[in-house]
Amino acid sequence: MKLILAVVQDKDVTRLQDALTEHDFKTTKLASSGGFLKEGNTTLMIGVDDEEVDPCLEIIQDNCSKREQMVAPISPMGGNADSYIPKPVKVEVGGATVFVLPVEAFHHF
Amino acid sequence: MKLILAVVQDKDVTRLQDALTEHDFKTTKLASSGGFLKEGNTTLMIGVDDEEVDPCLEIIQDNCSKREQMVAPISPMGGNADSYIPKPVKVEVGGATVFVLPVEAFHHF
Amino acid sequence: MKLILAVVQDKDVTRLQDALTEHDFKTTKLASSGGFLKEGNTTLMIGVDDEEVDPCLEIIQDNCSKREQMVAPISPMGGNADSYIPKPVKVEVGGATVFVLPVEAFHHF
Ligand code: NI
Ligand code: NI
Ligand code: NI
Repeated sequence: MKLILAVVQDKDVTRLQDALTEHDFKTTKLASSGGFLKEGNTTLMIGVDDEEVDPCLEIIQDNCSKREQMVAPISPMGGNADSYIPKPVKVEVGGATVFVLPVEAFHHF
Repeated sequence: MKLILAVVQDKDVTRLQDALTEHDFKTTKLASSGGFLKEGNTTLMIGVDDEEVDPCLEIIQDNCSKREQMVAPISPMGGNADSYIPKPVKVEVGGATVFVLPVEAFHHF
Repeated sequence: MKLILAVVQDKDVTRLQDALTEHDFKTTKLASSGGFLKEGNTTLMIGVDDEEVDPCLEIIQDNCSKREQMVAPISPMGGNADSYIPKPVKVEVGGATVFVLPVEAFHHF
């Protein structure tokens, strides 16, 4: 038995939880913020049997990897919006920081 | 030293914390949601000496076990409330998912 | 690799996070409450290499140790405020409860 703690971006958490549920992993969401990832983030706790660690990590990687996204920048306040055509810029989104912890005992009451 | 992480239903958490405090266990509450238990839940962190793991688990079991409860169902909206006598139904409440983690070092500053 | 879980008082968390960031430690903040420390508290998760555990603990100790502070007590409601000169009283603030957990694997996606 292992406890997987995965810190992921808020924008990825619903898709990740759906994918984990589909593969019968049960997750608990902890409200978290800052630090490992720049934007709002969530920490998932996932209790898994030893042989399920790798499949679980694969699902996390598939749904939360760092990737680039084109976003339209906000036009500057007070600028002449009519003459300003915002150019989409590449930003990095996603990413996951994952700790796999040993578990001495697991109970379900 | 072990770290006990207990995910319990919100409705059980005050009674559990009172019982743990009465037996000199100190708890920290993490806001959590979803997953292991269907309703709103809370994750308690409890640091305990090795020989206190079993007594602590017993208190969690005593206060948070799954059990059945009779509840009066909400009468359906728009239904004829006068002629409708809701029959209490059995629902399962409570339950706890508990991880016992090894601790390498503990400090109190 | 270790995972450090530090429960610290809310009033110390910004200074602690600044100090940890300055020394290149990355932290994730979990909303927490009650228990180990009387006032509002926050739990920080910090993933560190084995040789960085002691430096990290030192930063936590430097920024969060229990200490005494003089505070002006609130004057009692309905009392004669004019004739009442509140005497500052010593209160204990700060403090940290820290768990160092072994980590089996660490991933960054
Ligand atoms: Ni699949
Ligand atoms: Ni008792
Ligand atoms: Ni320094």
